[in-house]
Amino acid sequence: MKRSIFFVSDSTGITAETLGHALLSQFEALEYDQTTIPFVVGETEARAAVRRIDDAAEAGAGRPIVFSTLVNPDLNEILRESDALVVDFFSAFVRPLEIEFNRGSSHATGRFHGLVDRASYDGRIDAMDYALDHDDGGGIRHYHDADVVLVGVSRSGKTPTCVYLALQFGIRAANYPLTEEDLDAGNLPDMLAPHRERLFGLTIVPERLRQIRSERRPNSRYASLNRCRKEVADAESIFRREGVRFIDTSGSSIEEIASKILQSTGLTRRAF
Amino acid sequence: MKRSIFFVSDSTGITAETLGHALLSQFEALEYDQTTIPFVVGETEARAAVRRIDDAAEAGAGRPIVFSTLVNPDLNEILRESDALVVDFFSAFVRPLEIEFNRGSSHATGRFHGLVDRASYDGRIDAMDYALDHDDGGGIRHYHDADVVLVGVSRSGKTPTCVYLALQFGIRAANYPLTEEDLDAGNLPDMLAPHRERLFGLTIVPERLRQIRSERRPNSRYASLNRCRKEVADAESIFRREGVRFIDTSGSSIEEIASKILQSTGLTRRAF
Repeated sequence: MKRSIFFVSDSTGITAETLGHALLSQFEALEYDQTTIPFVVGETEARAAVRRIDDAAEAGAGRPIVFSTLVNPDLNEILRESDALVVDFFSAFVRPLEIEFNRGSSHATGRFHGLVDRASYDGRIDAMDYALDHDDGGGIRHYHDADVVLVGVSRSGKTPTCVYLALQFGIRAANYPLTEEDLDAGNLPDMLAPHRERLFGLTIVPERLRQIRSERRPNSRYASLNRCRKEVADAESIFRREGVRFIDTSGSSIEEIASKILQSTGLTRRAF
Repeated sequence: MKRSIFFVSDSTGITAETLGHALLSQFEALEYDQTTIPFVVGETEARAAVRRIDDAAEAGAGRPIVFSTLVNPDLNEILRESDALVVDFFSAFVRPLEIEFNRGSSHATGRFHGLVDRASYDGRIDAMDYALDHDDGGGIRHYHDADVVLVGVSRSGKTPTCVYLALQFGIRAANYPLTEEDLDAGNLPDMLAPHRERLFGLTIVPERLRQIRSERRPNSRYASLNRCRKEVADAESIFRREGVRFIDTSGSSIEEIASKILQSTGLTRRAF
């Protein structure tokens, strides 16, 4: 039997999930069933959540654990009537901040992951449109609008990283795939030259590249280890010769790649 | 002068930012300068962080506030030597969980937003590839592989929602734009019929649609209020006639839209 974990929120549940998973990741080999209960905005929803939690408690794999980002203390009180350990995010931290800022907090729901800051939100959506319009070598004539242009061989992680930079940070990221022709020429294509200071290279271990490409096109020349080795070596040699900063994406998640790019370029997050 | 806020992490800083912003959003009209210090993995980086924090403290807009997701208690001790209020997420909550699980936590760094669970991570990247390959009516012959197919008029929020569902939850989401031809016909295109149970409609207030379309193509027929009104009315009438569930995206963020789709469809998050 697995322990039941609940993420309870008055909004999307994303902050509750983030907090809960960060904490649970500290316990090795912990197995659990997880349920997100979003949009708990009143007593009715809170009591319905308690019933679900108590049903899980009766099913009997240890008492459930509830990660709550409910802002309203009355609703958290209702959650505490359940047979669960309630980890109450706001009450733990809001009080010290109220003292520090010398004022009360709003206890307003849905303020995060909502549409509170329209300009910042629109910036993220604009950045996302930009990433998709400038994916895979598209729209090079608009590179002067890019915060960063990722360069690398096919399937080195450029597209997911661009989309993540847009969605999470509101950063306008384009990407340009180094083609066989570019790689054989041994230098950056002329049209990238005016944007040199915006370029950022992604590289990858050839064995990992072969694995990723094989899932798309098994047994192709494109996915062969020889081809992957040659492309990666050529790309890295171009990065070095042309003074383009680059990082190896092989052992990193897109969150880690994106954070390293921000750290290395000094680009500022536009949105949160 | 604005208060200085720091997000300090041994990994990407994304969890620290998420939790810190959730707390700060409870204080209305609070102005602050924010700095993320990621990859604080040892004493050297922790001491460098303290220097940056103390420099901000000396600049003098009230003492800085540090949101820390450092797992290592020794590094948090170093942070506490700074002239800042340190909000330490792990120490507040890990101990009660250790008692509950009756075992120690690993105090291991980089376990979240890293590549700990390769299968779950690869699922997110696969879902992202799927979203991009099946954007804007692409790849309809593979809709049987979709968890959900978003349907709506142009610029109703389909693409960002699909990408978010993939990145955040590992959900395979395709999207199909209702064309003028579809709208005039007054029913779903035949090729969507076999996938009816996967369809989910997005609608939007015509005035908001006009605004979004005008940013892309000012003064076009496409962006005219009349055109937007007619398309939205036709789309909603198709959703109702064909029994397609739908939600209004106008006042919602993509996080909220995605959460509502999960709640309404009962789809399970595949990744976290």
